[in-house]
Amino acid sequence: MQIAIPVFDRMTALDAIGPYEVLSRIPGAKVTFVASETGPKRADTDMLSVNADATLADIPDPDVILIGGGYGSRALMKDQEMLDWVRTAHETSQWTTSVCTGALVLAAAGILDGLEATTYWLELETLRQFGATPVSKRFVEQGKVITAAGVSAGIDMALVLAARLTNDDVAKAIQLGIEYDPQPPFDTGSPAKAPEQIQELVRMAQRAEEQTMTASG
Amino acid sequence: MQIAIPVFDRMTALDAIGPYEVLSRIPGAKVTFVASETGPKRADTDMLSVNADATLADIPDPDVILIGGGYGSRALMKDQEMLDWVRTAHETSQWTTSVCTGALVLAAAGILDGLEATTYWLELETLRQFGATPVSKRFVEQGKVITAAGVSAGIDMALVLAARLTNDDVAKAIQLGIEYDPQPPFDTGSPAKAPEQIQELVRMAQRAEEQTMTASG
Repeated sequence: MQIAIPVFDRMTALDAIGPYEVLSRIPGAKVTFVASETGPKRADTDMLSVNADATLADIPDPDVILIGGGYGSRALMKDQEMLDWVRTAHETSQWTTSVCTGALVLAAAGILDGLEATTYWLELETLRQFGATPVSKRFVEQGKVITAAGVSAGIDMALVLAARLTNDDVAKAIQLGIEYDPQPPFDTGSPAKAPEQIQELVRMAQRAEEQTMTASG
Repeated sequence: MQIAIPVFDRMTALDAIGPYEVLSRIPGAKVTFVASETGPKRADTDMLSVNADATLADIPDPDVILIGGGYGSRALMKDQEMLDWVRTAHETSQWTTSVCTGALVLAAAGILDGLEATTYWLELETLRQFGATPVSKRFVEQGKVITAAGVSAGIDMALVLAARLTNDDVAKAIQLGIEYDPQPPFDTGSPAKAPEQIQELVRMAQRAEEQTMTASG
């Protein structure tokens, strides 16, 4: 079973690595990080780089596609090579999935047109531009397309995907294998729960990041 | 604020990347992935590589040390350069922390002697060999030393650490920033909750991995 995860500059690392940690533990699964060109890609804040081990052309027909998000997903939404790869791979995939703003890449490729979908809470309404109906849920399953909410939601979605790809016992063992018994110290993990001033802190950080992005091109 | 996270072959990627995703969002924090030599390190299953951007010698006195685990932590426990770096960095650190079997590296460096600590559930008893008292908790704080349980526990621990390093509002905003509102599909994330046959599946996977490790040297 071939699972392809694109990596790109300014991606949010946990979007990809959370699901990787789950899916790579499926017996017989091979997870490959792919990009237009192999080599290092710098995550969001430029403090981490992970490597693409294969090109998009190397893996045209993975069984599972998983696209994470981050500021760099905006460039991917205009990257014709990536969009063509996503469209073609989606024709034969068993599952086409996204985490966070990776959903906007699926949307830009036309895959979410007419579907319910979710994405990072600050970008939910953007989905409408691509014919999708935004839903504020941890993840949304529509046929073989699963979109997950922001960043850490990819772990929850990947465990469900692992169960679909194998069976519940394997997924339960993977959950124990990564000791996923979450005990978040606060109850501010979604906009429905976080007070307005906490939401505003996140919006401020996003605006600062956008300015950095504009400044650096 | 300088935060150093060692990377090494056969590390568990999420042990390091979960906390990275939290700590890198602290305003003014600089997270650096370090190793004896810069360059790519292959994670556990050899399906992913992340890069060390600096050497241990480059960052002798970080404010925060965070050591993740994975099968490769066993080699780190005998790596004199790493152990010397950990001991020296611990002398001046604000916080010395671990995730999963990263605790065994702190233990091998002598840092957990006489302390309560936690680690990956399958390795809890190993802590006793190093004078530590194993505690089955999500994370254990002892002065400036915090040890977290397996893999995903690093996210919970890092949010608490972010609050200690700044204030609760910043940590709450980071939790919302990574949309950490966990909804695990099963309730098998700890050995206290997982049935025996699920635990046995994890033990079997670990034994298989150990055999691979022995075979590959």
